Amino acid sequence: MAQWLRFTHHNKPGFGQLSGEQIQVHSGDMFAHSQATGETIPLAEVKIDIPCVPSKMIAMVDNFHALVTKLEHKVPVEPLYFLKGNNSFLANEQTIRTPKSYSGKVVYEGELGIVIGKHCHEVSESEAQHCIFGYTCINDVTAIEILNRDPGYAQWTRSKSFNTFGVFGPYITSGIDPMTLSIKTILNDQERQNYPVSDMIFPPAKLVSLISQDVPLEPGDIIACGTSVGVGSMKPGSQVSIVIDGVGRLDNAFE
Amino acid sequence: MAQWLRFTHHNKPGFGQLSGEQIQVHSGDMFAHSQATGETIPLAEVKIDIPCVPSKMIAMVDNFHALVTKLEHKVPVEPLYFLKGNNSFLANEQTIRTPKSYSGKVVYEGELGIVIGKHCHEVSESEAQHCIFGYTCINDVTAIEILNRDPGYAQWTRSKSFNTFGVFGPYITSGIDPMTLSIKTILNDQERQNYPVSDMIFPPAKLVSLISQDVPLEPGDIIACGTSVGVGSMKPGSQVSIVIDGVGRLDNAFE
Repeated sequence: MAQWLRFTHHNKPGFGQLSGEQIQVHSGDMFAHSQATGETIPLAEVKIDIPCVPSKMIAMVDNFHALVTKLEHKVPVEPLYFLKGNNSFLANEQTIRTPKSYSGKVVYEGELGIVIGKHCHEVSESEAQHCIFGYTCINDVTAIEILNRDPGYAQWTRSKSFNTFGVFGPYITSGIDPMTLSIKTILNDQERQNYPVSDMIFPPAKLVSLISQDVPLEPGDIIACGTSVGVGSMKPGSQVSIVIDGVGRLDNAFE
Repeated sequence: MAQWLRFTHHNKPGFGQLSGEQIQVHSGDMFAHSQATGETIPLAEVKIDIPCVPSKMIAMVDNFHALVTKLEHKVPVEPLYFLKGNNSFLANEQTIRTPKSYSGKVVYEGELGIVIGKHCHEVSESEAQHCIFGYTCINDVTAIEILNRDPGYAQWTRSKSFNTFGVFGPYITSGIDPMTLSIKTILNDQERQNYPVSDMIFPPAKLVSLISQDVPLEPGDIIACGTSVGVGSMKPGSQVSIVIDGVGRLDNAFE
């Protein structure tokens, strides 16, 4: 198990592995050839950045049995997804903000994120397994009143792509079995979501394989696995955390 | 009026302005500070690349009255759009290919593309006008049988983001009034689409202003304005051209 992060320290960007409360600084490419430089920086001294810069974030719809059942949707026979705009990316401890043009409810959606480590296109499920670098926490923030307000067209990308709505991090954790994980969302110290990855309709390796039949995936690309029951709205001043034990805890304020 | 293109000549990338059958090579940034180097290369000697590298391509749905009427949809009260994957981008004279995982119909959709020239976010319609660098031809290729095959979720991004499905170019034409233009699609020498930009529900400057309330737009970003009536399928061996007189002619083979 290793936990990777990107950070800014004295205005200089860097990346490394977490070791307790210290960062072991690395050089090279996180996804290819990286090595420890020997330098160590206390985690408390850095600003944590998004842990990678995805060329795309593919976000799943209806990927947990519990939510599909609650919504009375059919279990999908193929992965259903949209693209979340790259402008929306936000790091741990940065502030999620309601866009100026919108005054409706904004909801959190706690999700598991798959981080791709190798270029893959049209790969089998077993090949896909080796293309997964690790996992991260995602808050797939949504201007929920936009989603279904047009009678004929569901506005997935738009309602989920405002600046600051694509929250992920703080770490990418590699070398773990995702099927044992649970995703929790804590809103102002109250647990609002707590659901197991094992309830996923298309689990990670299968998902990567299937999506790779459609589009090439690149190192640093993220698949947001979709959320389950317990989605709710945030109020200005809310503190929201996506907690995946063994992966990380993603903390943000909402204004 | 100026026509800009990017090209490869003797394995070296470059960009410039078209002048008859010659390219006046430029240096610098096409969208900011560029200047003629004095070098001239015959257009016939270069491979034409995509005319810019968008950070995103935003693609419109239901943006022409004629198509909305034909489909018996309501005229939308706000722009409806999705993101087309950046992996899909394809240049003039490159080959559009059916993905291995799909054996259904593939359709052309001839469209006007707006190319952004300046960062803009939350701008008025008159400010938006100054953020438009120019216009290009788009073929918004679609694996149409995927779009509505799930009963509950329309797969816009997926059906339109396969490699080679985001065709645009060959030029970006600046200094023209888009409202006078018509978009034609020619399939194997037969005209299949011919519709005026003046039928657009959200015309270019209004569209840029409205979308900029949602997301920041960057130099080189493209808004595909949506198609109108006359969409149809291509067969292996088809030649498809999107022709916008005064803007350019985008030629591709389909396999």
